[in-house]
Amino acid sequence: MRIAIAQLNSTIGDIKGNAQKIVEVAQEAHSQKAQLLLTPELSLCGYPPKDLLLAPDFITMMAQELKAIARKIPPSLTALVGIATINEDAGIAGEKPLYNSVALLQGKKIKQIFHKQLLPTYKVFDESRYFATGKKTNYFVLNKVKIGVTICEDIWNDHYFWGIKKYKTNPVEKLFKKNIDLLINLSASPYCEMKQPERRSIVQSIIDNYQKPAIYVNQIGGNDELIFDGNSFAVNKKSNIIATGKNCETDLIYVDYCPEKKDIFSDENISFIDKKEIEIYSVLVLGVKDYARKCGFKKAIVGLSGGIDSALVAKIAVDALGKENVTGVLMPSPYSSDNSIIDSEKLAHNLGITIQTIPIEPMMKSFDSALKPSFVNTDFGITEENLQSRIRGTLLMAFANKFGYLLLSTGNKSEMSVGYCTLYGDMNGGLAVIGDVPKMMVFSLCKWLNKDQEIIPQNIINKPPSAELKPEQKDEDSLPPYPILDEILEQYIYLHKSEKQIVKLGFDLEVVRKVIRLVNNAEFKRKQAPPILRISSQAFGTDWRMPIAKQINF
Amino acid sequence: MRIAIAQLNSTIGDIKGNAQKIVEVAQEAHSQKAQLLLTPELSLCGYPPKDLLLAPDFITMMAQELKAIARKIPPSLTALVGIATINEDAGIAGEKPLYNSVALLQGKKIKQIFHKQLLPTYKVFDESRYFATGKKTNYFVLNKVKIGVTICEDIWNDHYFWGIKKYKTNPVEKLFKKNIDLLINLSASPYCEMKQPERRSIVQSIIDNYQKPAIYVNQIGGNDELIFDGNSFAVNKKSNIIATGKNCETDLIYVDYCPEKKDIFSDENISFIDKKEIEIYSVLVLGVKDYARKCGFKKAIVGLSGGIDSALVAKIAVDALGKENVTGVLMPSPYSSDNSIIDSEKLAHNLGITIQTIPIEPMMKSFDSALKPSFVNTDFGITEENLQSRIRGTLLMAFANKFGYLLLSTGNKSEMSVGYCTLYGDMNGGLAVIGDVPKMMVFSLCKWLNKDQEIIPQNIINKPPSAELKPEQKDEDSLPPYPILDEILEQYIYLHKSEKQIVKLGFDLEVVRKVIRLVNNAEFKRKQAPPILRISSQAFGTDWRMPIAKQINF
Repeated sequence: MRIAIAQLNSTIGDIKGNAQKIVEVAQEAHSQKAQLLLTPELSLCGYPPKDLLLAPDFITMMAQELKAIARKIPPSLTALVGIATINEDAGIAGEKPLYNSVALLQGKKIKQIFHKQLLPTYKVFDESRYFATGKKTNYFVLNKVKIGVTICEDIWNDHYFWGIKKYKTNPVEKLFKKNIDLLINLSASPYCEMKQPERRSIVQSIIDNYQKPAIYVNQIGGNDELIFDGNSFAVNKKSNIIATGKNCETDLIYVDYCPEKKDIFSDENISFIDKKEIEIYSVLVLGVKDYARKCGFKKAIVGLSGGIDSALVAKIAVDALGKENVTGVLMPSPYSSDNSIIDSEKLAHNLGITIQTIPIEPMMKSFDSALKPSFVNTDFGITEENLQSRIRGTLLMAFANKFGYLLLSTGNKSEMSVGYCTLYGDMNGGLAVIGDVPKMMVFSLCKWLNKDQEIIPQNIINKPPSAELKPEQKDEDSLPPYPILDEILEQYIYLHKSEKQIVKLGFDLEVVRKVIRLVNNAEFKRKQAPPILRISSQAFGTDWRMPIAKQINF
Repeated sequence: MRIAIAQLNSTIGDIKGNAQKIVEVAQEAHSQKAQLLLTPELSLCGYPPKDLLLAPDFITMMAQELKAIARKIPPSLTALVGIATINEDAGIAGEKPLYNSVALLQGKKIKQIFHKQLLPTYKVFDESRYFATGKKTNYFVLNKVKIGVTICEDIWNDHYFWGIKKYKTNPVEKLFKKNIDLLINLSASPYCEMKQPERRSIVQSIIDNYQKPAIYVNQIGGNDELIFDGNSFAVNKKSNIIATGKNCETDLIYVDYCPEKKDIFSDENISFIDKKEIEIYSVLVLGVKDYARKCGFKKAIVGLSGGIDSALVAKIAVDALGKENVTGVLMPSPYSSDNSIIDSEKLAHNLGITIQTIPIEPMMKSFDSALKPSFVNTDFGITEENLQSRIRGTLLMAFANKFGYLLLSTGNKSEMSVGYCTLYGDMNGGLAVIGDVPKMMVFSLCKWLNKDQEIIPQNIINKPPSAELKPEQKDEDSLPPYPILDEILEQYIYLHKSEKQIVKLGFDLEVVRKVIRLVNNAEFKRKQAPPILRISSQAFGTDWRMPIAKQINF
């Protein structure tokens, strides 16, 4: 029995468009003699649909479109399609009104519906907001093969793997008690560091236990802050990976189930990414590409400061949208070093992008004159630094508005953490491309990009980071050196450690205290940040829900 | 038995400060002969603590501080304090690691811990993200009176009231099966329209059923977007309200339980708000007051356009912070009408606030010159309109940065819905004061404010709304008239109706289609909006979780 694994890139909400994609892969899979087609979690509406799920007609339309898909796909193909369905017993049982489901289509009909049993409600996930817990054990029989169906989180409660139980029930255990021959998992698993090996490990750990083959299907595509990297895979009963879906691309791959050997086989390629920089870079490119495409942008604009952050973002933009679709804008002030302009021009040359140069001094002067009567007897300070940044942000938005460009904001995670960035200034943009990339990783990515030839001019990598908002300014005048800052931030933000705990690790109390204060005081800025492409297991955005008005005394 | 109801205004995260407040009211209650003190849900950390709950030391510190409170309060007083506690069985039971609990303190000790059983996970609430479901029936006996303890949502699963079950269990039913004499509910219930009568109705519906008295304690205070209005109340066994806590103020009131009559009695005042405008206005004032105070601001700044929105926000700011702490800034452009300046000056005079006037034409010219080479052969349009707004936003932020003012943004909900506002321009600010107030309600509030004397100049109320970003511009050139717009928005945003359903109500298809398109296209702006004070049952912010990159075809 031939099984097709469709690694689809659904657009959130676009039920008709997604349905069309499903029908197309079904036809292709059928032409390749597949008898079973697997699509990702909620493939019909895209994941995560969020509060669109609260619109009754959204649910109705999915149900209608599902029937249409059943009619359109080859009747001899069995297809699993992800869809939100109505929980008819909600009001009687005291449950949420929907299920996160998978429909089994066969012979032009909807034959079975399976409901997700474990609903992630942590980090970026809010599934208990919408969905009731499925209770039935989900399997079907095709060509005498008993196939267990799990939806994403359903496989993640393996207490052998975690050492603890994360949910009360274990759908995988229940399935193997029913003697399934093959386990499939239909996922929408967003990328974060270490996620790829973790997915394989959990499935392999299950197979080590049960010695039955498994297929893991993942969504691909960027949906706002979340980037789904694909990397679907199939594992035979000996726990060997026998096929993998592409990294960050749609894909349609095949495995064959052999009833005699009760195992799966495949001629597909197997490849894993073995370098953090490749992983991160490829998801960032996909994140920009899909955000632009799904929002209807063809072109992007980036402010080029001469620094490493904007250089990296420009390079990502070029790889996402094509060099002809990226414009760099240089906006030197009297505090900009000559090198900043030279370096930016060199970068633009290396990338092959056009640049515009607009000195900001005239606008600085007009604001200074306008504010002079009110600011009499005050000194140059943060206000005047922010003004430069806001003039630049306003110029960039003028370009974006005039020509329909997507403005990409260039702040890194270290800056966003401590608020070393200007709200309504350099934070401006539709998407914060590297807002989840710590400064030290920005360096690593740029060095890696330069491995074969100089793309990011070496001088941009070498020079000490500076906002260049006043003479001779260096980031380290205001912040601890980045290697130390990033380590403290990791403890405070990723691991939710307290001042006391971080100091115990050997960091200076005053430095730790200052960093923590800066992080907490910058919450209002992060509230107003653009969506930040998520690459870590603790990003800002829906992954980080912190009060703004607060007092921290622990 | 005398029972004290402490309507506290906790600051999120400020465990020490909140503990101090609890100790103070305990001493006051004891001096007034109270034997039992009730405080709101999570009174020790403030509600909602959000992801602060993920920091282990935050939980530890609460536990320590709870012990300290127990030692500090009069030993003969029994006190109920809201606190997050550790679920020791989490990893074995497959549950979340914390409980939303209430501790019973007595004789310098922690005597009992009660866990919340119904965890709201909808709208602004995310409790399933953090908390496990309490399973025990929560009561204690004091002076032979059996007192049932419920925490906020625990009372909201009355299927007689709703006609459906919202949760599987009903903690109230379980308590009355144990023959409790008195039901208490410790809440942190944020304001939204109709919430006050709804709270009373649900409690009265319970009492109609069981004929036992009940006490409902609510938090007060603004915590970011959420405003807790207080309005605690006590209901005797005949379902009559016998005492009420203040609207939007901290309060400490008393009721007496009479063991002979098995009922409660009180000398406290009873008052309800019977006018929507009073309700809404008072919570908005509290929202501004507390956001400023809890973020450390004394003074605020408001851009005065001559329009009704900024006039209302200025008045709210004055009532929240005092007229001496509010500065209005007039930033006329060549497109501003003379009346706008006259009206703003008159408003400032009525409010007694100082104003600064900064014409923006010089900045407009400097941006125009800078952009001219790039914008050659393009027409005046949205870009140039946005520029004016961004120049103003930048000037306001310069004042805010220079003098430590809180910038209040002035957009109303109708504008925020359809994106009739400029990101990084008029949307700038630490807090969107009326971002949940539809335009028609802005008019109502201003008319009501003028009931005794003219506070908002009548001309501001009378003139047709205009952004004044180009000659002779009126909002209605771009948008449907506000009465129609607000009705369509109510259908689309509050009720999640589809285009088809709204058109069925009698609205013009083209108008509905346009409004829906505008709402969906403005998602990226709302993502970057400041926190919006919530007054409705469907606000933007954590109450509205919509994808940005999407296609809507239903």
